[in-house]
Amino acid sequence: MSGLDTQQWFTEVFEPSGSAFGLAITAKLDEVQSPFQHIEIFDTTHFGKLMVIDGCTMVSSRENFLYHEMMSHPALFTHPSPKNVVIIGGGDCGTLREVLKHQGVETVHQIDIDEQVTRMAEKYFPELCASNNDPRATILFDDGIKFMREAAPESIDVVIVDSTDPVGPGEGLFNRAFYQSCLNALRPGGILVQQSESPLIHLQLLTDMRQAMLDAGFAALQTLNFPQMIYPSGWWTCTLARKSEGFSGFREADAAAANLNTGYYNIDIHKAAMALPNFVQKAFANQK
Amino acid sequence: MSGLDTQQWFTEVFEPSGSAFGLAITAKLDEVQSPFQHIEIFDTTHFGKLMVIDGCTMVSSRENFLYHEMMSHPALFTHPSPKNVVIIGGGDCGTLREVLKHQGVETVHQIDIDEQVTRMAEKYFPELCASNNDPRATILFDDGIKFMREAAPESIDVVIVDSTDPVGPGEGLFNRAFYQSCLNALRPGGILVQQSESPLIHLQLLTDMRQAMLDAGFAALQTLNFPQMIYPSGWWTCTLARKSEGFSGFREADAAAANLNTGYYNIDIHKAAMALPNFVQKAFANQK
Repeated sequence: MSGLDTQQWFTEVFEPSGSAFGLAITAKLDEVQSPFQHIEIFDTTHFGKLMVIDGCTMVSSRENFLYHEMMSHPALFTHPSPKNVVIIGGGDCGTLREVLKHQGVETVHQIDIDEQVTRMAEKYFPELCASNNDPRATILFDDGIKFMREAAPESIDVVIVDSTDPVGPGEGLFNRAFYQSCLNALRPGGILVQQSESPLIHLQLLTDMRQAMLDAGFAALQTLNFPQMIYPSGWWTCTLARKSEGFSGFREADAAAANLNTGYYNIDIHKAAMALPNFVQKAFANQK
Repeated sequence: MSGLDTQQWFTEVFEPSGSAFGLAITAKLDEVQSPFQHIEIFDTTHFGKLMVIDGCTMVSSRENFLYHEMMSHPALFTHPSPKNVVIIGGGDCGTLREVLKHQGVETVHQIDIDEQVTRMAEKYFPELCASNNDPRATILFDDGIKFMREAAPESIDVVIVDSTDPVGPGEGLFNRAFYQSCLNALRPGGILVQQSESPLIHLQLLTDMRQAMLDAGFAALQTLNFPQMIYPSGWWTCTLARKSEGFSGFREADAAAANLNTGYYNIDIHKAAMALPNFVQKAFANQK
Protein backbone atom coordinates (compact mmCIF):
# COMPACT_ATOMS: atom_id res chain seq x y z
CA MET A 1 0.00 0.00 0.00
CA SER A 2 1.18 3.50 -0.73
CA GLY A 3 1.07 6.42 1.63
CA LEU A 4 -2.66 7.03 1.13
CA ASP A 5 -3.41 5.81 4.64
CA THR A 6 -1.76 8.92 5.94
CA GLN A 7 -3.03 11.03 3.05
CA GLN A 8 -5.25 14.03 3.54
CA TRP A 9 -8.58 14.02 1.77
CA PHE A 10 -11.24 16.39 0.71
CA THR A 11 -14.53 14.55 1.04
CA GLU A 12 -17.98 15.73 0.06
CA VAL A 13 -20.79 13.98 1.87
CA PHE A 14 -24.02 14.03 -0.09
CA GLU A 15 -26.68 13.53 2.54
CA PRO A 16 -29.77 12.91 0.39
CA SER A 17 -28.22 9.73 -1.00
CA GLY A 18 -26.03 8.73 1.95
CA SER A 19 -22.97 8.75 -0.29
CA ALA A 20 -19.59 10.43 -0.22
CA PHE A 21 -16.85 11.17 -2.72
CA GLY A 22 -13.29 12.11 -1.89
CA LEU A 23 -10.08 13.12 -3.58
CA ALA A 24 -6.63 12.80 -2.02
CA ILE A 25 -5.12 16.24 -1.56
CA THR A 26 -1.60 17.47 -1.04
CA ALA A 27 -2.39 21.03 0.09
CA LYS A 28 -5.06 23.65 0.55
CA LEU A 29 -3.87 26.39 -1.77
CA ASP A 30 -6.38 29.11 -1.09
CA GLU A 31 -9.64 29.94 0.60
CA VAL A 32 -11.98 32.92 0.58
CA GLN A 33 -15.33 33.75 2.10
CA SER A 34 -17.12 35.84 -0.50
CA PRO A 35 -20.36 37.69 0.27
CA PHE A 36 -22.15 34.67 -1.22
CA GLN A 37 -20.24 31.50 -0.46
CA HIS A 38 -17.11 29.83 0.87
CA ILE A 39 -14.58 28.97 -1.85
CA GLU A 40 -11.62 26.65 -1.32
CA ILE A 41 -8.87 25.52 -3.70
CA PHE A 42 -6.97 22.28 -3.14
CA ASP A 43 -4.13 20.58 -4.92
CA THR A 44 -4.93 16.89 -5.42
CA THR A 45 -2.69 13.90 -6.00
CA HIS A 46 -4.32 12.82 -9.29
CA PHE A 47 -6.90 15.39 -10.44
CA GLY A 48 -4.92 18.62 -10.55
CA LYS A 49 -6.55 21.55 -8.81
CA LEU A 50 -9.95 21.22 -7.12
CA MET A 51 -12.40 24.06 -6.48
CA VAL A 52 -14.87 23.49 -3.65
CA ILE A 53 -17.80 25.83 -2.96
CA ASP A 54 -19.66 25.57 0.34
CA GLY A 55 -18.25 22.08 0.81
CA CYS A 56 -19.27 20.80 -2.64
CA THR A 57 -16.73 19.75 -5.29
CA MET A 58 -17.23 22.06 -8.28
CA VAL A 59 -14.33 21.74 -10.72
CA SER A 60 -11.21 19.61 -11.03
CA SER A 61 -8.51 20.24 -13.63
CA ARG A 62 -8.61 16.65 -14.87
CA GLU A 63 -12.24 16.02 -15.61
CA ASN A 64 -14.12 19.33 -15.91
CA PHE A 65 -14.01 19.01 -19.71
CA LEU A 66 -16.90 16.55 -19.74
CA TYR A 67 -19.27 18.95 -18.00
CA HIS A 68 -18.21 22.12 -19.81
CA GLU A 69 -18.39 20.50 -23.24
CA MET A 70 -21.80 18.96 -22.58
CA MET A 71 -23.24 22.22 -21.21
CA SER A 72 -22.37 24.05 -24.42
CA HIS A 73 -21.91 22.05 -27.63
CA PRO A 74 -25.17 20.06 -27.75
CA ALA A 75 -27.26 23.25 -27.39
CA LEU A 76 -25.12 25.27 -29.79
CA PHE A 77 -25.22 22.53 -32.45
CA THR A 78 -28.99 22.16 -31.98
CA HIS A 79 -29.92 25.82 -32.29
CA PRO A 80 -30.04 26.63 -36.04
CA SER A 81 -27.80 29.69 -35.77
CA PRO A 82 -26.73 30.78 -32.28
CA LYS A 83 -25.33 34.32 -32.32
CA ASN A 84 -26.10 35.78 -28.88
CA VAL A 85 -25.45 33.58 -25.87
CA VAL A 86 -25.90 34.24 -22.15
CA ILE A 87 -24.29 32.15 -19.41
CA ILE A 88 -25.86 32.45 -15.96
CA GLY A 89 -23.35 31.34 -13.33
CA GLY A 90 -20.37 29.71 -14.99
CA GLY A 91 -17.88 31.79 -13.00
CA ASP A 92 -15.04 29.33 -13.58
CA CYS A 93 -15.27 30.40 -17.26
CA GLY A 94 -14.98 26.83 -18.64
CA THR A 95 -18.38 26.97 -20.34
CA LEU A 96 -17.52 30.39 -21.77
CA ARG A 97 -14.37 28.95 -23.32
CA GLU A 98 -16.36 26.15 -24.99
CA VAL A 99 -19.07 28.50 -26.29
CA LEU A 100 -16.42 30.75 -27.86
CA LYS A 101 -15.13 27.79 -29.90
CA HIS A 102 -18.22 28.35 -32.09
CA GLN A 103 -17.21 30.78 -34.85
CA GLY A 104 -20.78 31.88 -35.51
CA VAL A 105 -21.29 33.15 -31.96
CA GLU A 106 -21.13 36.97 -31.93
CA THR A 107 -21.63 37.83 -28.24
CA VAL A 108 -21.48 35.93 -24.97
CA HIS A 109 -22.52 37.56 -21.70
CA GLN A 110 -21.51 35.66 -18.58
CA ILE A 111 -23.30 36.71 -15.39
CA ASP A 112 -22.05 35.12 -12.18
CA ILE A 113 -23.08 36.65 -8.89
CA ASP A 114 -19.73 35.90 -7.28
CA GLU A 115 -16.65 37.64 -8.63
CA GLN A 116 -14.44 35.58 -6.32
CA VAL A 117 -15.20 32.39 -8.27
CA THR A 118 -13.76 33.96 -11.41
CA ARG A 119 -10.77 35.43 -9.55
CA MET A 120 -9.97 31.97 -8.17
CA ALA A 121 -10.42 30.39 -11.60
CA GLU A 122 -8.07 32.92 -13.20
CA LYS A 123 -5.43 32.02 -10.64
CA TYR A 124 -5.83 28.24 -10.35
CA PHE A 125 -7.58 27.18 -13.58
CA PRO A 126 -6.02 29.58 -16.12
CA GLU A 127 -6.75 27.11 -18.94
CA LEU A 128 -10.49 27.59 -18.32
CA CYS A 129 -10.06 31.36 -18.57
CA ALA A 130 -8.05 31.22 -21.80
CA SER A 131 -10.82 32.94 -23.78
CA ASN A 132 -11.85 35.55 -21.21
CA ASN A 133 -10.30 38.31 -23.30
CA ASP A 134 -12.06 37.26 -26.50
CA PRO A 135 -13.68 40.49 -27.81
CA ARG A 136 -17.01 38.64 -28.09
CA ALA A 137 -17.07 37.95 -24.31
CA THR A 138 -18.53 40.22 -21.61
CA ILE A 139 -17.99 39.04 -18.05
CA LEU A 140 -20.36 40.56 -15.50
CA PHE A 141 -20.70 40.01 -11.77
CA ASP A 142 -24.33 40.46 -11.00
CA ASP A 143 -27.56 38.71 -10.12
CA GLY A 144 -28.43 36.36 -12.99
CA ILE A 145 -32.10 36.24 -12.01
CA LYS A 146 -32.34 40.02 -12.29
CA PHE A 147 -30.30 40.02 -15.52
CA MET A 148 -32.72 37.63 -17.19
CA ARG A 149 -35.77 39.44 -15.84
CA GLU A 150 -34.50 42.72 -17.33
CA ALA A 151 -33.15 41.31 -20.60
CA ALA A 152 -34.75 42.70 -23.76
CA PRO A 153 -37.50 40.40 -25.09
CA GLU A 154 -36.41 38.10 -27.90
CA SER A 155 -32.78 39.21 -27.75
CA ILE A 156 -30.94 35.95 -26.94
CA ASP A 157 -30.46 32.67 -28.84
CA VAL A 158 -29.12 30.40 -26.09
CA VAL A 159 -29.19 30.78 -22.29
CA ILE A 160 -26.90 28.39 -20.40
CA VAL A 161 -27.58 28.06 -16.68
CA ASP A 162 -24.27 26.77 -15.33
CA SER A 163 -25.09 27.04 -11.66
CA THR A 164 -24.41 25.38 -8.35
CA ASP A 165 -27.04 23.07 -6.92
CA PRO A 166 -30.50 24.40 -6.06
CA VAL A 167 -29.48 25.46 -2.58
CA GLY A 168 -27.78 28.75 -1.64
CA PRO A 169 -27.18 31.26 -4.45
CA GLY A 170 -28.32 28.76 -7.11
CA GLU A 171 -31.78 28.21 -5.59
CA GLY A 172 -33.69 30.86 -7.56
CA LEU A 173 -32.44 29.40 -10.85
CA PHE A 174 -34.60 26.29 -10.60
CA ASN A 175 -38.16 27.59 -10.77
CA ARG A 176 -40.93 28.67 -13.08
CA ALA A 177 -40.48 32.44 -12.57
CA PHE A 178 -36.86 32.28 -13.67
CA TYR A 179 -37.73 30.05 -16.63
CA GLN A 180 -40.39 32.55 -17.74
CA SER A 181 -37.78 35.33 -17.74
CA CYS A 182 -35.56 33.12 -19.89
CA LEU A 183 -38.43 32.29 -22.24
CA ASN A 184 -39.24 35.99 -22.73
CA ALA A 185 -35.61 36.84 -23.43
CA LEU A 186 -35.12 34.06 -25.98
CA ARG A 187 -35.84 34.55 -29.65
CA PRO A 188 -38.22 32.07 -31.27
CA GLY A 189 -36.41 28.73 -31.52
CA GLY A 190 -34.11 29.78 -28.69
CA ILE A 191 -32.78 27.23 -26.25
CA LEU A 192 -32.37 27.27 -22.48
CA VAL A 193 -29.82 24.77 -21.11
CA GLN A 194 -29.56 23.94 -17.44
CA GLN A 195 -27.39 21.53 -15.49
CA SER A 196 -30.01 19.16 -14.11
CA GLU A 197 -28.29 16.94 -11.54
CA SER A 198 -28.03 13.13 -11.36
CA PRO A 199 -30.61 10.83 -12.95
CA LEU A 200 -29.84 8.19 -10.34
CA ILE A 201 -30.11 10.22 -7.15
CA HIS A 202 -31.98 13.42 -8.10
CA LEU A 203 -34.66 12.00 -10.35
CA GLN A 204 -37.50 13.83 -8.60
CA LEU A 205 -35.66 17.15 -8.75
CA LEU A 206 -34.91 16.58 -12.44
CA THR A 207 -38.51 15.69 -13.18
CA ASP A 208 -39.78 18.73 -11.25
CA MET A 209 -37.36 21.01 -13.09
CA ARG A 210 -38.59 19.70 -16.43
CA GLN A 211 -42.18 20.29 -15.34
CA ALA A 212 -41.37 23.87 -14.30
CA MET A 213 -39.84 24.46 -17.75
CA LEU A 214 -42.97 23.15 -19.45
CA ASP A 215 -45.22 25.14 -17.11
CA ALA A 216 -43.25 28.28 -17.97
CA GLY A 217 -44.16 27.73 -21.60
CA PHE A 218 -41.20 25.95 -23.17
CA ALA A 219 -42.38 23.81 -26.06
CA ALA A 220 -40.00 20.83 -25.95
CA LEU A 221 -37.36 19.33 -23.69
CA GLN A 222 -34.29 17.20 -24.18
CA THR A 223 -32.39 15.77 -21.21
CA LEU A 224 -28.84 14.64 -22.01
CA ASN A 225 -26.76 12.46 -19.72
CA PHE A 226 -23.01 12.12 -19.29
CA PRO A 227 -20.45 10.98 -16.73
CA GLN A 228 -19.08 13.49 -14.22
CA MET A 229 -16.86 11.80 -11.66
CA ILE A 230 -16.71 14.48 -8.96
CA TYR A 231 -20.46 15.13 -8.75
CA PRO A 232 -22.69 12.93 -6.60
CA SER A 233 -23.18 9.49 -8.24
CA GLY A 234 -20.67 10.31 -11.02
CA TRP A 235 -23.56 10.55 -13.51
CA TRP A 236 -25.00 13.90 -14.49
CA THR A 237 -27.45 15.56 -16.88
CA CYS A 238 -28.21 18.82 -18.59
CA THR A 239 -31.66 19.68 -19.89
CA LEU A 240 -32.35 21.67 -23.05
CA ALA A 241 -35.68 23.53 -23.29
CA ARG A 242 -36.72 24.99 -26.62
CA LYS A 243 -38.99 27.95 -27.26
CA SER A 244 -41.84 27.92 -29.79
CA GLU A 245 -41.32 24.67 -31.64
CA GLY A 246 -40.05 21.12 -31.26
CA PHE A 247 -36.40 20.18 -31.50
CA SER A 248 -35.61 20.14 -35.19
CA GLY A 249 -32.59 18.04 -34.43
CA PHE A 250 -28.91 18.22 -34.31
CA ARG A 251 -26.83 20.10 -36.94
CA GLU A 252 -24.63 17.08 -37.43
CA ALA A 253 -22.97 18.28 -40.66
CA ASP A 254 -22.03 21.57 -39.01
CA ALA A 255 -20.60 19.75 -36.00
CA ALA A 256 -18.51 17.58 -38.35
CA ALA A 257 -17.31 20.63 -40.28
CA ALA A 258 -16.46 22.58 -37.10
CA ASN A 259 -14.35 19.68 -35.84
CA LEU A 260 -13.94 21.38 -32.44
CA ASN A 261 -10.99 20.53 -30.26
CA THR A 262 -12.83 18.61 -27.54
CA GLY A 263 -11.87 15.81 -25.17
CA TYR A 264 -15.30 14.25 -24.67
CA TYR A 265 -17.79 15.70 -27.14
CA ASN A 266 -18.20 14.37 -30.66
CA ILE A 267 -21.13 13.61 -32.96
CA ASP A 268 -21.67 10.08 -31.63
CA ILE A 269 -21.44 11.29 -28.02
CA HIS A 270 -24.01 14.02 -28.71
CA LYS A 271 -26.51 11.51 -30.07
CA ALA A 272 -25.70 8.97 -27.36
CA ALA A 273 -26.28 11.51 -24.57
CA MET A 274 -29.94 11.71 -25.59
CA ALA A 275 -30.57 8.01 -24.90
CA LEU A 276 -32.42 7.66 -21.62
CA PRO A 277 -32.61 4.52 -19.47
CA ASN A 278 -35.98 2.87 -18.93
CA PHE A 279 -36.28 4.07 -15.33
CA VAL A 280 -35.72 7.68 -16.45
CA GLN A 281 -38.14 7.38 -19.37
CA LYS A 282 -40.74 6.11 -16.92
CA ALA A 283 -40.26 9.18 -14.67
CA PHE A 284 -40.68 11.48 -17.69
CA ALA A 285 -43.56 9.56 -19.23
CA ASN A 286 -46.27 12.00 -18.25
CA GLN A 287 -44.33 15.00 -19.47
CA LYS A 288 -43.79 16.02 -23.03
CA MET B 1 -27.99 18.76 8.86
CA SER B 2 -29.09 15.22 9.51
CA GLY B 3 -27.28 12.67 11.58
CA LEU B 4 -24.77 11.77 8.89
CA ASP B 5 -21.98 13.43 10.84
CA THR B 6 -22.25 10.64 13.33
CA GLN B 7 -23.04 8.09 10.63
CA GLN B 8 -20.89 5.05 9.98
CA TRP B 9 -19.49 4.68 6.48
CA PHE B 10 -18.04 2.04 4.29
CA THR B 11 -15.40 3.77 2.16
CA GLU B 12 -13.35 2.29 -0.64
CA VAL B 13 -10.11 4.12 -1.32
CA PHE B 14 -8.92 3.66 -4.87
CA GLU B 15 -5.21 4.39 -4.68
CA PRO B 16 -4.28 4.56 -8.37
CA SER B 17 -6.52 7.59 -8.84
CA GLY B 18 -6.33 9.09 -5.35
CA SER B 19 -10.10 8.91 -5.05
CA ALA B 20 -12.56 7.44 -2.58
CA PHE B 21 -16.21 6.49 -2.60
CA GLY B 22 -18.34 5.84 0.44
CA LEU B 23 -21.84 4.78 1.38
CA ALA B 24 -23.48 5.47 4.72
CA ILE B 25 -24.15 2.20 6.52
CA THR B 26 -26.44 1.21 9.33
CA ALA B 27 -24.93 -2.19 10.13
CA LYS B 28 -22.48 -4.86 9.11
CA LEU B 29 -24.77 -7.82 8.48
CA ASP B 30 -22.27 -10.56 7.74
CA GLU B 31 -18.66 -11.32 7.02
CA VAL B 32 -16.75 -14.39 5.89
CA GLN B 33 -13.18 -15.18 4.99
CA SER B 34 -13.39 -17.68 2.16
CA PRO B 35 -10.33 -19.55 0.89
CA PHE B 36 -10.07 -16.85 -1.79
CA GLN B 37 -11.18 -13.51 -0.40
CA HIS B 38 -12.79 -11.55 2.41
CA ILE B 39 -16.51 -10.91 1.88
CA GLU B 40 -18.56 -8.40 3.88
CA ILE B 41 -22.23 -7.46 3.72
CA PHE B 42 -23.48 -4.08 4.94
CA ASP B 43 -26.88 -2.48 5.19
CA THR B 44 -26.76 1.06 3.81
CA THR B 45 -29.00 4.06 4.43
CA HIS B 46 -29.95 4.60 0.76
CA PHE B 47 -28.58 1.80 -1.43
CA GLY B 48 -30.00 -1.33 0.18
CA LYS B 49 -27.48 -4.08 0.84
CA LEU B 50 -23.84 -3.70 -0.13
CA MET B 51 -21.41 -6.55 -0.84
CA VAL B 52 -17.73 -5.75 -0.38
CA ILE B 53 -14.93 -8.11 -1.44
CA ASP B 54 -11.39 -7.50 -0.19
CA GLY B 55 -12.34 -3.92 0.60
CA CYS B 56 -13.85 -3.16 -2.83
CA THR B 57 -17.53 -2.34 -3.33
CA MET B 58 -18.98 -5.04 -5.57
CA VAL B 59 -22.79 -4.91 -5.59
CA SER B 60 -25.47 -2.68 -4.10
CA SER B 61 -29.16 -3.50 -4.22
CA ARG B 62 -30.08 -0.13 -5.70
CA GLU B 63 -27.81 0.24 -8.68
CA ASN B 64 -26.43 -3.18 -9.67
CA PHE B 65 -28.98 -3.36 -12.51
CA LEU B 66 -26.92 -1.06 -14.72
CA TYR B 67 -23.88 -3.33 -14.62
CA HIS B 68 -25.70 -6.65 -14.89
CA GLU B 69 -27.85 -5.51 -17.80
CA MET B 70 -24.90 -4.07 -19.71
CA MET B 71 -22.76 -7.19 -19.16
CA SER B 72 -25.40 -9.39 -20.78
CA HIS B 73 -27.93 -7.80 -23.15
CA PRO B 74 -25.61 -6.00 -25.62
CA ALA B 75 -23.64 -9.21 -26.27
CA LEU B 76 -26.72 -11.42 -26.43
CA PHE B 77 -28.48 -9.07 -28.86
CA THR B 78 -25.33 -8.83 -30.99
CA HIS B 79 -24.64 -12.56 -31.35
CA PRO B 80 -26.94 -13.84 -34.13
CA SER B 81 -28.31 -16.74 -32.06
CA PRO B 82 -26.83 -17.30 -28.61
CA LYS B 83 -27.74 -20.75 -27.28
CA ASN B 84 -24.87 -21.79 -25.00
CA VAL B 85 -23.53 -19.18 -22.61
CA VAL B 86 -20.75 -19.35 -20.01
CA ILE B 87 -20.31 -16.84 -17.18
CA ILE B 88 -16.87 -16.76 -15.56
CA GLY B 89 -17.14 -15.22 -12.11
CA GLY B 90 -20.56 -13.65 -11.65
CA GLY B 91 -21.07 -15.33 -8.27
CA ASP B 92 -23.73 -12.83 -7.20
CA CYS B 93 -25.89 -14.38 -9.97
CA GLY B 94 -27.16 -11.01 -11.28
CA THR B 95 -25.68 -11.53 -14.74
CA LEU B 96 -27.08 -15.07 -14.82
CA ARG B 97 -30.56 -13.70 -14.15
CA GLU B 98 -30.25 -11.24 -17.05
CA VAL B 99 -28.92 -13.88 -19.47
CA LEU B 100 -31.83 -16.18 -18.64
CA LYS B 101 -34.27 -13.46 -19.73
CA HIS B 102 -33.30 -14.44 -23.30
CA GLN B 103 -35.72 -17.16 -24.40
CA GLY B 104 -33.37 -18.54 -27.07
CA VAL B 105 -30.65 -19.34 -24.56
CA GLU B 106 -30.56 -23.10 -23.93
CA THR B 107 -27.75 -23.49 -21.37
CA VAL B 108 -25.85 -21.17 -19.04
CA HIS B 109 -22.87 -22.41 -17.05
CA GLN B 110 -21.71 -20.07 -14.30
CA ILE B 111 -18.24 -20.79 -12.92
CA ASP B 112 -17.20 -18.72 -9.92
CA ILE B 113 -14.20 -19.85 -7.92
CA ASP B 114 -15.76 -18.75 -4.63
CA GLU B 115 -18.91 -20.49 -3.42
CA GLN B 116 -19.20 -18.03 -0.53
CA VAL B 117 -20.03 -15.18 -2.91
CA THR B 118 -23.07 -17.07 -4.13
CA ARG B 119 -24.09 -18.13 -0.60
CA MET B 120 -23.97 -14.49 0.49
CA ALA B 121 -25.92 -13.38 -2.60
CA GLU B 122 -28.62 -15.98 -1.95
CA LYS B 123 -29.01 -14.65 1.57
CA TYR B 124 -28.72 -10.87 1.04
CA PHE B 125 -29.50 -10.33 -2.67
CA PRO B 126 -32.23 -12.95 -3.26
CA GLU B 127 -33.61 -10.91 -6.17
CA LEU B 128 -30.34 -11.49 -8.06
CA CYS B 129 -30.65 -15.24 -7.46
CA ALA B 130 -34.27 -15.43 -8.63
CA SER B 131 -33.34 -17.53 -11.67
CA ASN B 132 -30.77 -19.83 -10.06
CA ASN B 133 -33.18 -22.76 -10.27
CA ASP B 134 -33.94 -22.25 -13.94
CA PRO B 135 -33.41 -25.68 -15.57
CA ARG B 136 -31.13 -24.05 -18.16
CA ALA B 137 -28.69 -22.89 -15.44
CA THR B 138 -25.72 -24.83 -14.06
CA ILE B 139 -23.89 -23.18 -11.18
CA LEU B 140 -20.37 -24.47 -10.60
CA PHE B 141 -17.73 -23.45 -8.08
CA ASP B 142 -14.44 -23.97 -9.79
CA ASP B 143 -11.49 -22.28 -11.45
CA GLY B 144 -12.80 -20.37 -14.47
CA ILE B 145 -9.38 -20.30 -16.13
CA LYS B 146 -9.19 -24.08 -16.01
CA PHE B 147 -12.83 -24.41 -17.11
CA MET B 148 -12.20 -22.37 -20.24
CA ARG B 149 -8.90 -24.16 -20.97
CA GLU B 150 -10.67 -27.54 -20.83
CA ALA B 151 -13.89 -26.50 -22.60
CA ALA B 152 -14.64 -28.38 -25.82
CA PRO B 153 -13.50 -26.41 -28.90
CA GLU B 154 -16.26 -24.43 -30.62
CA SER B 155 -18.87 -25.34 -28.01
CA ILE B 156 -19.92 -21.92 -26.64
CA ASP B 157 -21.67 -18.90 -28.19
CA VAL B 158 -21.03 -16.24 -25.56
CA VAL B 159 -18.50 -16.11 -22.70
CA ILE B 160 -19.14 -13.37 -20.11
CA VAL B 161 -16.23 -12.60 -17.79
CA ASP B 162 -17.94 -10.99 -14.82
CA SER B 163 -14.93 -10.81 -12.54
CA THR B 164 -13.40 -8.70 -9.85
CA ASP B 165 -10.57 -6.34 -10.77
CA PRO B 166 -7.32 -7.71 -12.20
CA VAL B 167 -5.79 -8.28 -8.78
CA GLY B 168 -6.32 -11.31 -6.54
CA PRO B 169 -8.48 -14.14 -7.93
CA GLY B 170 -9.43 -12.08 -11.00
CA GLU B 171 -5.88 -11.49 -12.17
CA GLY B 172 -5.57 -14.48 -14.52
CA LEU B 173 -8.71 -13.40 -16.39
CA PHE B 174 -7.06 -10.38 -18.00
CA ASN B 175 -4.37 -11.86 -20.25
CA ARG B 176 -3.71 -13.37 -23.65
CA ALA B 177 -3.54 -17.01 -22.47
CA PHE B 178 -7.03 -16.82 -20.98
CA TYR B 179 -8.40 -15.04 -24.04
CA GLN B 180 -6.95 -17.80 -26.27
CA SER B 181 -8.80 -20.42 -24.23
CA CYS B 182 -11.98 -18.40 -24.69
CA LEU B 183 -11.35 -18.02 -28.42
CA ASN B 184 -10.87 -21.79 -28.82
CA ALA B 185 -14.05 -22.56 -26.90
CA LEU B 186 -16.20 -20.12 -28.86
CA ARG B 187 -18.01 -21.12 -32.02
CA PRO B 188 -17.36 -19.00 -35.11
CA GLY B 189 -19.06 -15.65 -34.58
CA GLY B 190 -18.95 -16.21 -30.83
CA ILE B 191 -18.49 -13.28 -28.46
CA LEU B 192 -16.39 -12.79 -25.35
CA VAL B 193 -17.55 -10.02 -23.00
CA GLN B 194 -15.42 -8.71 -20.19
CA GLN B 195 -15.94 -5.93 -17.66
CA SER B 196 -13.16 -3.55 -18.62
CA GLU B 197 -12.92 -0.93 -15.86
CA SER B 198 -13.19 2.88 -16.05
CA PRO B 199 -12.37 4.81 -19.23
CA LEU B 200 -11.40 7.81 -17.12
CA ILE B 201 -9.03 6.22 -14.62
CA HIS B 202 -8.07 2.83 -16.13
CA LEU B 203 -7.54 3.81 -19.74
CA GLN B 204 -4.15 2.10 -20.02
CA LEU B 205 -5.51 -1.12 -18.50
CA LEU B 206 -8.49 -1.02 -20.85
CA THR B 207 -6.26 -0.41 -23.88
CA ASP B 208 -3.89 -3.22 -22.83
CA MET B 209 -6.82 -5.60 -22.35
CA ARG B 210 -8.10 -4.81 -25.82
CA GLN B 211 -4.63 -5.42 -27.24
CA ALA B 212 -4.40 -8.79 -25.46
CA MET B 213 -7.78 -9.76 -26.98
CA LEU B 214 -6.55 -8.85 -30.46
CA ASP B 215 -3.22 -10.62 -29.89
CA ALA B 216 -5.12 -13.74 -28.85
CA GLY B 217 -6.81 -13.72 -32.25
CA PHE B 218 -10.15 -12.02 -31.74
CA ALA B 219 -11.21 -10.34 -34.97
CA ALA B 220 -13.10 -7.27 -33.75
CA LEU B 221 -13.74 -5.36 -30.53
CA GLN B 222 -16.51 -3.15 -29.20
CA THR B 223 -16.11 -1.24 -25.92
CA LEU B 224 -19.38 -0.05 -24.38
CA ASN B 225 -19.59 2.51 -21.60
CA PHE B 226 -22.18 3.08 -18.91
CA PRO B 227 -22.54 4.69 -15.46
CA GLN B 228 -21.84 2.58 -12.37
CA MET B 229 -21.97 4.70 -9.26
CA ILE B 230 -20.21 2.41 -6.77
CA TYR B 231 -17.18 1.61 -8.95
CA PRO B 232 -14.19 3.96 -9.05
CA SER B 233 -15.04 7.12 -11.05
CA GLY B 234 -18.71 6.08 -11.43
CA TRP B 235 -18.12 5.36 -15.13
CA TRP B 236 -17.49 1.86 -16.35
CA THR B 237 -17.07 -0.23 -19.51
CA CYS B 238 -17.45 -3.70 -20.86
CA THR B 239 -15.62 -4.91 -23.95
CA LEU B 240 -17.03 -7.34 -26.51
CA ALA B 241 -14.56 -9.36 -28.58
CA ARG B 242 -15.83 -11.31 -31.57
CA LYS B 243 -14.38 -14.44 -33.14
CA SER B 244 -13.88 -14.88 -36.87
CA GLU B 245 -15.62 -11.90 -38.34
CA GLY B 246 -16.49 -8.26 -37.70
CA PHE B 247 -19.48 -7.18 -35.67
CA SER B 248 -22.47 -7.58 -37.93
CA GLY B 249 -24.39 -5.24 -35.69
CA PHE B 250 -27.10 -5.22 -33.19
CA ARG B 251 -30.30 -7.36 -33.57
CA GLU B 252 -32.44 -4.32 -32.93
CA ALA B 253 -35.71 -5.85 -34.13
CA ASP B 254 -35.21 -8.85 -31.85
CA ALA B 255 -34.45 -6.56 -28.91
CA ALA B 256 -37.64 -4.63 -29.61
CA ALA B 257 -39.67 -7.84 -29.88
CA ALA B 258 -38.17 -9.33 -26.70
CA ASN B 259 -39.11 -6.18 -24.74
CA LEU B 260 -37.14 -7.39 -21.73
CA ASN B 261 -38.01 -6.13 -18.29
CA THR B 262 -34.95 -3.94 -17.68
CA GLY B 263 -34.29 -0.81 -15.66
CA TYR B 264 -31.43 0.64 -17.69
CA TYR B 265 -31.05 -1.25 -20.97
CA ASN B 266 -33.08 -0.43 -24.06
CA ILE B 267 -32.37 -0.11 -27.78
CA ASP B 268 -31.27 3.52 -27.59
CA ILE B 269 -29.05 2.84 -24.58
CA HIS B 270 -27.43 -0.10 -26.40
CA LYS B 271 -26.50 2.09 -29.35
CA ALA B 272 -25.50 5.00 -27.12
CA ALA B 273 -23.15 2.83 -25.07
CA MET B 274 -20.99 2.30 -28.17
CA ALA B 275 -20.26 6.04 -28.56
CA LEU B 276 -16.74 6.73 -27.34
CA PRO B 277 -15.36 10.12 -26.26
CA ASN B 278 -12.51 11.66 -28.25
CA PHE B 279 -9.92 10.92 -25.58
CA VAL B 280 -10.88 7.23 -25.58
CA GLN B 281 -10.94 7.03 -29.38
CA LYS B 282 -7.43 8.46 -29.38
CA ALA B 283 -6.21 5.76 -26.99
CA PHE B 284 -7.74 3.04 -29.20
CA ALA B 285 -6.61 4.60 -32.49
CA ASN B 286 -3.78 2.19 -33.17
CA GLN B 287 -5.90 -0.87 -32.43
CA LYS B 288 -8.49 -2.39 -34.64
